[in-house]
Amino acid sequence: MRLLGISGSLRAASTNTAALRAAALLAPAGCEIVVTDALAQLPPFNPDLDADLPPAVAAFRRAIGGSDGLLIAAPEYAHGVSGVLKNALDWLVAGCEFPDKPVALINTSPRATLAQAQLRETLRTMAGRVIDEAAVSLPLLGRELDAAAIAADPALAGALQAALARFRAAIEHAPDDKADASG
Amino acid sequence: MRLLGISGSLRAASTNTAALRAAALLAPAGCEIVVTDALAQLPPFNPDLDADLPPAVAAFRRAIGGSDGLLIAAPEYAHGVSGVLKNALDWLVAGCEFPDKPVALINTSPRATLAQAQLRETLRTMAGRVIDEAAVSLPLLGRELDAAAIAADPALAGALQAALARFRAAIEHAPDDKADASG
Repeated sequence: MRLLGISGSLRAASTNTAALRAAALLAPAGCEIVVTDALAQLPPFNPDLDADLPPAVAAFRRAIGGSDGLLIAAPEYAHGVSGVLKNALDWLVAGCEFPDKPVALINTSPRATLAQAQLRETLRTMAGRVIDEAAVSLPLLGRELDAAAIAADPALAGALQAALARFRAAIEHAPDDKADASG
Repeated sequence: MRLLGISGSLRAASTNTAALRAAALLAPAGCEIVVTDALAQLPPFNPDLDADLPPAVAAFRRAIGGSDGLLIAAPEYAHGVSGVLKNALDWLVAGCEFPDKPVALINTSPRATLAQAQLRETLRTMAGRVIDEAAVSLPLLGRELDAAAIAADPALAGALQAALARFRAAIEHAPDDKADASG
C-alpha cells in the first residue's frame, strides 16, 4: 500500500510537514508513505491550461493516481485553507485521479477548526472519500518538534499509528458502496 | 481615488475579471480602477521568505498599499475560495498594507455562497474593512459577456455603478471608528 502525504504548508519547520514525516517513520509494515514536495512547484491554477497541462501538474496528478490514499496535513491561515493547498486541489478538479480517493486528515492545531471544515467540504465536493475515523488531531502547535521527536513521543506516535491503522483498514476493507456512506 | 481590482480567476474569459474590467469602464469621475494581473506572478506562499520577499510579492503589497480600496471578484471552486486568491491573501497577512483596507466583493455567480462566506471570514480575520453595502451580485454565469457587454447592459451596469458609488462613499466618509462597526 502506498500513501501520499500532502502538507499545506511550505515552511521548512512546518509542524504539518513534520507530522507527515513522522507518519512515514511510523508506517506499518507493507505500507509506504511518501511526503510530496510537489505543491511548491505547482503554478497558479488556470483552467485554460487544462488541455496542455504544465509538467508539474501532470506529475502531481500521476502521484495522486498512483497512491492508494492521501494523508493531508492542513494548516489554517487567516481562518481558511492555505492557498497553497487549495491551489493543488483546484488542479485536481478536472482530472480523473482524485474522485473516490481515500483521504485522512491530520490537524496539528486542534483549536483550528475552520480550515478543516472548509477542507472537508471541498474534498467531498470533489468526490474524495474522507475517512472520518482516520482523522487525527495532534497538539503540536508551539512545541517545535521535528519528525523524529514526534515519532519518539509515545502519545503522539500512538495517535498517529492508530489513525494509520484505521485508514489502512478503511482502504482495504471498505466495500464500494461505503464510499457514499462516508461522503 | 484609486481602487485595485483583484480577480480570483486566471481564466482569460473569466466572468470575474470581466466584471472588474466593466467596473473600470464605469468608474465614476475622479476614481481610477486598475485590474491587477499580479496573482498569476505570485509564488506559492512560504512564510520562510518573509524576511526576503520575492519581488512579485513586494510589488503586490505595494499595489495594495497604494490603493484606497480593493474590489475583489472571487469565483467558487469546489465549494471554496480559489487557491489563487487565497494564496495572494496569505502573502498579505504578515504585511502592513492590508489591515483596515476597504474591500468590496463582486460575486458573478449569485448561487455560489460558500466561497463568499469563507472569503469574508478570512478578510475580517485579516482586519480588512469589508463594506457590506458595496457588495454586488451579478448573474453573469453562462452568459459569456465581456467587459464591454457588461458595461453596456443597463441592469448590470446600474448595479455595478450603484455598488461603486456606495463603496466610494464608505471610503470617503467613514469615520475611523466605523472600521470596527463594519468588521
